[in-house]
Amino acid sequence: MTETDLVMDRCDELASISSRPGLLERVHLSPEHKAANALVAQWMTEAGLSTWQDAAGNQCGRLEGREPGLPALLLGSHIDTVRDAGRYDGMLGVLLAIAVAGRIHRSGIELPFALEVVAFSDEEGTRFGMALLGSRALAGTWNDDWWSLTDGDGITLAEAFQDFGLDPARLPGAFRRSEDLVGYLETHIEQGPILEDADRRLAVVTSIAGARRFALTITGKAGHAGGTPYDRRRDALVGASEVVVEIERLSKLTGTIGTVGRLQAFPGGINVIPGRVEFSLDLRAEFDGQRDECLALVWAAAEEICARRGLRFDRHEIYRADAVPCDPGLMRAIGTGIRATGDESPMAFWSRAGHDGVAVADVTRIAMLFLRCRGGVSHHPDEHVKKADVAAALDAFEAAVLAVAAEYRP
Amino acid sequence: MTETDLVMDRCDELASISSRPGLLERVHLSPEHKAANALVAQWMTEAGLSTWQDAAGNQCGRLEGREPGLPALLLGSHIDTVRDAGRYDGMLGVLLAIAVAGRIHRSGIELPFALEVVAFSDEEGTRFGMALLGSRALAGTWNDDWWSLTDGDGITLAEAFQDFGLDPARLPGAFRRSEDLVGYLETHIEQGPILEDADRRLAVVTSIAGARRFALTITGKAGHAGGTPYDRRRDALVGASEVVVEIERLSKLTGTIGTVGRLQAFPGGINVIPGRVEFSLDLRAEFDGQRDECLALVWAAAEEICARRGLRFDRHEIYRADAVPCDPGLMRAIGTGIRATGDESPMAFWSRAGHDGVAVADVTRIAMLFLRCRGGVSHHPDEHVKKADVAAALDAFEAAVLAVAAEYRP
Repeated sequence: MTETDLVMDRCDELASISSRPGLLERVHLSPEHKAANALVAQWMTEAGLSTWQDAAGNQCGRLEGREPGLPALLLGSHIDTVRDAGRYDGMLGVLLAIAVAGRIHRSGIELPFALEVVAFSDEEGTRFGMALLGSRALAGTWNDDWWSLTDGDGITLAEAFQDFGLDPARLPGAFRRSEDLVGYLETHIEQGPILEDADRRLAVVTSIAGARRFALTITGKAGHAGGTPYDRRRDALVGASEVVVEIERLSKLTGTIGTVGRLQAFPGGINVIPGRVEFSLDLRAEFDGQRDECLALVWAAAEEICARRGLRFDRHEIYRADAVPCDPGLMRAIGTGIRATGDESPMAFWSRAGHDGVAVADVTRIAMLFLRCRGGVSHHPDEHVKKADVAAALDAFEAAVLAVAAEYRP
Repeated sequence: MTETDLVMDRCDELASISSRPGLLERVHLSPEHKAANALVAQWMTEAGLSTWQDAAGNQCGRLEGREPGLPALLLGSHIDTVRDAGRYDGMLGVLLAIAVAGRIHRSGIELPFALEVVAFSDEEGTRFGMALLGSRALAGTWNDDWWSLTDGDGITLAEAFQDFGLDPARLPGAFRRSEDLVGYLETHIEQGPILEDADRRLAVVTSIAGARRFALTITGKAGHAGGTPYDRRRDALVGASEVVVEIERLSKLTGTIGTVGRLQAFPGGINVIPGRVEFSLDLRAEFDGQRDECLALVWAAAEEICARRGLRFDRHEIYRADAVPCDPGLMRAIGTGIRATGDESPMAFWSRAGHDGVAVADVTRIAMLFLRCRGGVSHHPDEHVKKADVAAALDAFEAAVLAVAAEYRP
């Protein structure tokens, strides 16, 4: 079995650890998370790493450099999933990091820094609605307000920590200091069709999009579907529908990406005019200014629509991450890695999706390697990668680590 | 206490029989339905009627005419409610019918027909999603497929009958023959603002709107909000939003009334492009042809929108009632009744909402008296009527019954 076969098999094996029959769902601090950590720890050990689970539930492994205790270059990704997920988003990056560390261990190369692999506990935010909990803990940007976040069953994050066998009071033990880190490299599926459209396998990521997310509410007045003529209606759903269409138009106009992923009308009777609509907005762009300019246009459009229809528009920001640029030196190393696979002029573009690097960038420099995925599909069981592309990513990732080492000046 | 005070008090008393604290909900065949039937039967008895609960759970009372066993003029409405209902929709019509029968009983007038009051068991269809179950049973248009309809707890209609103490096998006992009926008169709140805007109290209903209801689905493809560029998106929600806006535009254009009361996007992740949207359409008009013409335009618009966006549009009809004209003779009697209250030229217009008369019309001629309600509001706790309007409705309803008697030729 080749190393690539092993990586692919392990993706399948991780995908079998799910809280729901017939589909993949593995959320933060669940029993399945614990099982996945144990399996990843075993694979880390087999690769020659010493392992530990940190105080935030991140599964970690370390390969010392030419002497013990050197600062570490982190390689990693996350092992939590969305609901009904694919099997490569996150997990593939963890398994490639383990495979690269294993290769370097077996090769006997002594790096001028330690290598650490991190399988982040929570990137998606599926369970508690707050993303990047694992990487924020590592970066030391934890906010104690989060302890009272609740999941769909009303369990707080603090209770979930305890149920998992973690002590919230010990969380600062997961924080890392900048001086102990060399940087952070992550391989991830592109989650978009740019590589596929260009018939290329790998790309250098230039920055990670800044995203802002909002909970939106439009309030009108419920009424009888038959008895309320149009000039008396304050139909929250027709208003919200106009806003959804405007979000698409304005996002295209400004070169940003706006998505309404959630929308529900209340009270929801088939013969009752909706009195309230709750919906979401996720807006992301390469540059924060561009994103915020689009938001201003969306708010103005929503206010105009609601004023015209006698509706009220409310918004509440629930997430904000500014765009994070990748480090030029680490990007050069990723480019060197891709060239080592025979691609003389690697593509370079920004990540529309958020990643653990957004949080890790608060404590150390970051860069990312993107890998082609079929149809650009992710967050869906149809997520798919070619084995040959995984093989190329493994070679490129290893070469990138060696390129970081070659340029490293402690 | 005046008769009107008594009617208002009884509306309040019925409103206190609810399955939910703090709001009014009383659905078909619930324990609260049984309690309401018992109370209504007591009031019928006090009014001088002989009472029975029919094989469909309708609460009935009868006042014989000048000789026993004559055909009956039915007066009635329903005592079931929507969720979080007002206290006049349905109930007021039942209580006015009892009050009219009581007046005629006390007056000693011998009518050329019997008077029967019916408190229909189910008009709203709240519990089993199928409206008019009580009046359809009475009209003999029952469909045995309905026995397997289920409520939100998976209880079938047949099981609910048994739990209520009714035997499904005996249902045909509720069927009435045309030759035993003189007609059906109902008083109901307008559920619209036409009377209020015209500063009038009462109106003759000319016809009951034909309504068709559909479950609609738009299917696209879920995908990552960040990773899927606009030219690759098959966003079911933006497509559905365009359809919702078109439904409003085309309904206004054709003089019909279209309402989307339910809409939900799936899978519903804040950072996931909706792959499926489920929504409803309720379309009603004074004339069936006008309604169906609007539907054809809506379907064409939806198909165009979905074709342009790479989406699939599916529709499933879940309810259909053609427009029901009121009987000219009974309408004349209602008009006579309104004139008896001092309004020399009664307003006459069509009912945008459905009523028990839609079903009863299959077995006998029907007519309705509309009563002003505040702001046109119904299906909402804010539902409100003026006591003076109720007093006028009581007088008009009684006078209408006497006018039917005056013109009656057996």
